[in-house]
Amino acid sequence: MAGPGQSALLTDLYQLTMLDSYWQTGMEDTATFELFTRRLPASRRFLLAAGLEQALDFLETVAVTDDELAWLESTGRFGGKFLDRLGQLRFTGDVWAMPEGTAFFPQEPVLRVEAPLPEAQLVESRLINLIHFPTLICSKAARCVLAAGGKTLVDFGMRRAHGAEAALFAARSAWIAGFAGTATVLAGQRFGLPIFGTMAHSFVQAHDSEAEAFEHFAAARPDGLVLLIDTYDVDRALDTVARLADGDTGLPVHVDAVRLDSGDLLTGARHIRERLDGLGRPEIGVFLSGDLDEYRLAELMDANVPASGFGVGTRLDTSADAPSIDFAYKLQSYAGRPRRKRSPGKATWPGARQVWRTLDSDGRLARDILGPAGGDEPGSPLLTRVMAGGRRVEPAESLDDCRSRAARELERLPTDLRSLELAREGWAPEISSELEALARATDQAFGY
Amino acid sequence: MAGPGQSALLTDLYQLTMLDSYWQTGMEDTATFELFTRRLPASRRFLLAAGLEQALDFLETVAVTDDELAWLESTGRFGGKFLDRLGQLRFTGDVWAMPEGTAFFPQEPVLRVEAPLPEAQLVESRLINLIHFPTLICSKAARCVLAAGGKTLVDFGMRRAHGAEAALFAARSAWIAGFAGTATVLAGQRFGLPIFGTMAHSFVQAHDSEAEAFEHFAAARPDGLVLLIDTYDVDRALDTVARLADGDTGLPVHVDAVRLDSGDLLTGARHIRERLDGLGRPEIGVFLSGDLDEYRLAELMDANVPASGFGVGTRLDTSADAPSIDFAYKLQSYAGRPRRKRSPGKATWPGARQVWRTLDSDGRLARDILGPAGGDEPGSPLLTRVMAGGRRVEPAESLDDCRSRAARELERLPTDLRSLELAREGWAPEISSELEALARATDQAFGY
Repeated sequence: MAGPGQSALLTDLYQLTMLDSYWQTGMEDTATFELFTRRLPASRRFLLAAGLEQALDFLETVAVTDDELAWLESTGRFGGKFLDRLGQLRFTGDVWAMPEGTAFFPQEPVLRVEAPLPEAQLVESRLINLIHFPTLICSKAARCVLAAGGKTLVDFGMRRAHGAEAALFAARSAWIAGFAGTATVLAGQRFGLPIFGTMAHSFVQAHDSEAEAFEHFAAARPDGLVLLIDTYDVDRALDTVARLADGDTGLPVHVDAVRLDSGDLLTGARHIRERLDGLGRPEIGVFLSGDLDEYRLAELMDANVPASGFGVGTRLDTSADAPSIDFAYKLQSYAGRPRRKRSPGKATWPGARQVWRTLDSDGRLARDILGPAGGDEPGSPLLTRVMAGGRRVEPAESLDDCRSRAARELERLPTDLRSLELAREGWAPEISSELEALARATDQAFGY
Repeated sequence: MAGPGQSALLTDLYQLTMLDSYWQTGMEDTATFELFTRRLPASRRFLLAAGLEQALDFLETVAVTDDELAWLESTGRFGGKFLDRLGQLRFTGDVWAMPEGTAFFPQEPVLRVEAPLPEAQLVESRLINLIHFPTLICSKAARCVLAAGGKTLVDFGMRRAHGAEAALFAARSAWIAGFAGTATVLAGQRFGLPIFGTMAHSFVQAHDSEAEAFEHFAAARPDGLVLLIDTYDVDRALDTVARLADGDTGLPVHVDAVRLDSGDLLTGARHIRERLDGLGRPEIGVFLSGDLDEYRLAELMDANVPASGFGVGTRLDTSADAPSIDFAYKLQSYAGRPRRKRSPGKATWPGARQVWRTLDSDGRLARDILGPAGGDEPGSPLLTRVMAGGRRVEPAESLDDCRSRAARELERLPTDLRSLELAREGWAPEISSELEALARATDQAFGY
């Protein structure tokens, strides 16, 4: 991603001040930071990790431009020595991470950075920013996928996503989670995603009649034709669609589906289905959009809505019921010494950590264990090294692989975690006895 | 803003398909589109317009790169003639808009585009995207400003904003609404905003003692020093702060404030205030952060919290209680003929429109009238022409001017609109009799 996202100044001011101090005092030993959530939003049972490729792109290229450096000098906040070093700063550390599409839970690190303290500190703000949002949307989209029972889902959210980058990342995350594709053209180009499109009300309005609008659109879009039927009057629009399909206006036109974008979607879809069948057009599908999310999808599916697919927009791209996750990037050790925070409600487990996952005999998630990274617990470790010395260890993973993993992970979730209803107790990893002992020893070593 | 945001492919696929049809059928007459909200989020009484400068930047520069064009060709969806024209497409239309910082209400157009139909249609998705998010955040930030009663507010939200662009735009919008500045360094560089910083828990943790951490930070940051005191134990940290201020570790250090970022902020701030006073340090302020928004700020201010300022992060940058606004960009007329949509719950008023605003004798908002743009109603018209033939009419407005306007607008709001509580009835413009007549005539002309 070109643009401001690769700037080392896309960070909080305190990171630069801390950097200045670390350099002044020679605190440049290796630090270990981990990215994890302390708790899940009230309406989430699990999260799916996403955004790793963009995070690694950032770490490989983060730098300050000459213009930015000149501006920083002009603020008078930093001295010449600091500015010289900042201008040359590159990220040279190692990174461990869960691959994209992996399901994870509170306290489990998604990503670990081991680097000289100033480097590891500077990248904090943007690293959180780059993992937080894609994970947020991938997790929301996964809930939509679970609710939609295999029906086609398309990301329609670009216009009300929070900016350009959010729109692109949302499309990518939704695809990893199992969406069929996105309406956002540039996401197709950037990430190789399938793109989908229907038509807008303005197209119908711009024509002097709806019939003319449909004919023109069919001429421009002979394949995969979806006609929007609620600009003026649904019944009249359906009659027009049927005439078009019957060839009354010339050659018969193959209409894939009609789209309804307003009113009560369940009642509307049933009415349209009945009417299309009555008009001898059972092959024309009904595509629904308008304020959809996993809750509404579940209601529609429970009511056996006669729909062939759904466009999910604003509520997906903004994760409307939970627009943020409590992601934090915490210092786990410095200079070989484990550290932890003890703030009320925000205490953390010290040291570099690993998650070991065990499945039961049905292939369902049975147990996660959180323990010190060097340890040996039953199960498969979820974090692997993806970057060494500031360079990727392997080429970027394909989005197909991420998507397959996400599908596998959703299948592995126990039934109560797949449900949209609140489970009585959230899933959490077991804390290994080694990690508990380390926390006690860390407090003691720091005199608390 | 460099990057994907200027690409004509940052749009919904249907825009390209409609473009194709418009070109094929020669529908290139002038279209009028307007951007407005149909209703406010349940927790909003007013909105403050923002994002206009970025929208005008986009319209002045929107284009397709050769790479993007080659990719689009490779999809096989569009013919050579279309691709040639798309490659040359530039926006050549006129734009009317409310200036940034203006308060507005449902149905009132924030922006009007008059351009050849294909151009006006293509820019829809990104135009909404560019006005929606900044307006969302400016409106949320204004509520925080009203709640904080003049205390310093700083945007801390970058890390959990939805991507890089969201972080930058949020900082800009918050400043227009009256925030003192932002922690996001790049927003300082891009928009000339004041930047603020404190310190992170990891800084304290990386040191072998909190005292050493505070000394090092004070050396790196002699002015505007804010020390974070809740990494381990607040009381011990305050003793350390007092010793530092007393000069026990060498020369006395000027500490501006201590920052509390966890636990119950009201109880914590009172305790800290008492203890600092007891330590003979009444001049050291208390800066609060952690899950703040306008509701929490109002509670704290009602309880007379002894705080000098607040950092407002995630809930501001995601507009957590209302992460989207129902913004739409609707065709108002084409080829000189007014148009409107009649979909259930989504019907619109036809034709180009203007808003006239009247103040009462106290300078408070008294009445808005929504009517046809050419008309003449009492009050001052809110939309002015900002772009002609695809170029700005005036240079970009200064952010200082936008900020002053926003402050004036907040003062003009009637008391019930300034309140965080739900007003019984939302504010809405009066519909002029001319506009009502035009709506009836439009329906009749289209046979409905």
